[in-house]
Amino acid sequence: MTTPFAARLAKLRDLLAAQKLDALLVTHPPDWYYLTGFTGEAGALIVERKKATLITDGRFIVQGKEETAGVRILQHKAGVFAAAGEFLRSAGLRRAGFDATQVSVAQHGALRKAAGRRCKLERTNGLVARLRIRKDALELAQMRKAAILASEVVEHAIGLLKPGVRELEVAAEIEFQMRRRGASGAAFESIVAFGERAALPHARPTDKRLGKNELVVLDLGAILGHYCSDITRTVYIGTAPKRVKEWYKAVLEAQSAAISAVRSGVTAGEVDSAARSTLAKYKLDRFFVHSTGHGLGLEVHEDPRLARGQKTRLEPGTVITIEPGIYMPGDGGIRIEDDVAVHEDRSEILTRSPRDFIEL
Amino acid sequence: MTTPFAARLAKLRDLLAAQKLDALLVTHPPDWYYLTGFTGEAGALIVERKKATLITDGRFIVQGKEETAGVRILQHKAGVFAAAGEFLRSAGLRRAGFDATQVSVAQHGALRKAAGRRCKLERTNGLVARLRIRKDALELAQMRKAAILASEVVEHAIGLLKPGVRELEVAAEIEFQMRRRGASGAAFESIVAFGERAALPHARPTDKRLGKNELVVLDLGAILGHYCSDITRTVYIGTAPKRVKEWYKAVLEAQSAAISAVRSGVTAGEVDSAARSTLAKYKLDRFFVHSTGHGLGLEVHEDPRLARGQKTRLEPGTVITIEPGIYMPGDGGIRIEDDVAVHEDRSEILTRSPRDFIEL
Repeated sequence: MTTPFAARLAKLRDLLAAQKLDALLVTHPPDWYYLTGFTGEAGALIVERKKATLITDGRFIVQGKEETAGVRILQHKAGVFAAAGEFLRSAGLRRAGFDATQVSVAQHGALRKAAGRRCKLERTNGLVARLRIRKDALELAQMRKAAILASEVVEHAIGLLKPGVRELEVAAEIEFQMRRRGASGAAFESIVAFGERAALPHARPTDKRLGKNELVVLDLGAILGHYCSDITRTVYIGTAPKRVKEWYKAVLEAQSAAISAVRSGVTAGEVDSAARSTLAKYKLDRFFVHSTGHGLGLEVHEDPRLARGQKTRLEPGTVITIEPGIYMPGDGGIRIEDDVAVHEDRSEILTRSPRDFIEL
Repeated sequence: MTTPFAARLAKLRDLLAAQKLDALLVTHPPDWYYLTGFTGEAGALIVERKKATLITDGRFIVQGKEETAGVRILQHKAGVFAAAGEFLRSAGLRRAGFDATQVSVAQHGALRKAAGRRCKLERTNGLVARLRIRKDALELAQMRKAAILASEVVEHAIGLLKPGVRELEVAAEIEFQMRRRGASGAAFESIVAFGERAALPHARPTDKRLGKNELVVLDLGAILGHYCSDITRTVYIGTAPKRVKEWYKAVLEAQSAAISAVRSGVTAGEVDSAARSTLAKYKLDRFFVHSTGHGLGLEVHEDPRLARGQKTRLEPGTVITIEPGIYMPGDGGIRIEDDVAVHEDRSEILTRSPRDFIEL
């Protein structure tokens, strides 16, 4: 089987050449997985113009050798950043890039000290992240599967919503169902929020039991073959009051408007604005306290951010979430979220679960 | 109910006074939970000599108000580090500490710029981590429960080990059982490694089915009431060859020696050495490719590290894992791990699962 890693390393090397860098230090696990297939959690990958070297500790040496091809594996004993700096120094590399968003001040200090005076460390923020934004056909295929899996699980979870069930029980069942369907795990701690708790956009599941006449927000995502999905559905237990139905309709309209705005070349801020201005029409925009969505891929939060005023233009192959929501203290919240792929001239919704208002 | 947060903030303020700091910027979520009870995932806490302010985004404002007491909650719109720097500047704070291991080079840049020239940013690495090392009685009680929960789940998982079962199925059931018993989730991705895969210390579960005459390593941990546990058991499917039995005996002896070495005042390196020298007696130390253990608490990896030559002295109230292991390419691996609390004159094993060699 040919792997995509060589092609990705080649693209990265073009960026290194353009920036006149001898090497890039890659310290973020999803970045090194993207470039080499290494799934270990600790180490540093040094990509030079012609070679790649992974420095890791004893726990990951065998795994590193098995998972990668054409990558030299070195074991360090006393600190990966000191070892990486020493590598740069002894290889005589003069200009090495590092990602300032991924390296702590303390790590940078250890790296700087070991790299020596002749090696210049350059900030090259998001070089690998930029490559990761444009998913290739294999990645999109995997993300469709991850999105469908999450859609199945959210529907299964809706089926569990009987008065008396606890938030934590539903959360447990959600994660079990993901695993049963082949996920390696949840992409984030599932949100199962009943009643007033649904007014917290990031509520953690508790012992609370489901009552009658409550909103329920379910927000979950699975990791399948390393790629993440993320879906939210909101349902009502009982017959919803008119105001709740109107809120739901407004959020759904805002989400549809944002999804329709998605295509290559549009700015992230324009997509956000499509959702926000729809909610403004209903005078609900002040209850929409977060951004419209975020990039999705090997991580559950990636570039781009779909927030107010963001100038980043969407590129073909990017996958984003579209998740407007409103939060009404005392009443709960309503959020609807789907995963959407950006194409040249259209958006493609990857998640597959009905969005009509459900009263149980 | 009195909460422990005021007392923890008071202790931190003593450290600030001793270091002549006007404020500490706390940016690591487990640190701010420890100090205030806030469970949100994004923000920055600024602890001054007399006040505490949490800067967060719209998603966490209501939650921040509900979860904390005596903490002012501020909403930022465009970057938490810029907002934190602006806060330091406008409050006229002259010396503010930050944790260089928790702040990225990019975040530090935004903070530095917004804080202005009159505010000096001082590195104060691990100030909150140092407080967190000594668990109080409530924390120890919670950690005992988390450890017992993990022990029950590992025994349940051993019961599932029938030829033909897949690694991923066992992993799914482990996480479901944790949830069922009240855990908010797994403390880390469970390791379920069959046969040769058990030779990878950090194997991720796969589709592999269990065969006869294979070693199985199960390494799992639960988060219960915010505190983590971590346990590993190794069993054999079939009748183990003599060499496997001897390996197991050596690892168990190494683990027991390390546990016996644990008490207040001993260095982390001495505990590591107790395990390592026992394995050396059996000429197995070169297969022990990682450290003996790590601190455990709100995070699954905390200070101290129990590694070769570590001079940190163990303190009463510290909880650590003791987990020597050996990895034999082709045969698999053997690791035995328990959670141990440090007391003045003794160690207390928190996990509760038999460690005798099991052949199924």
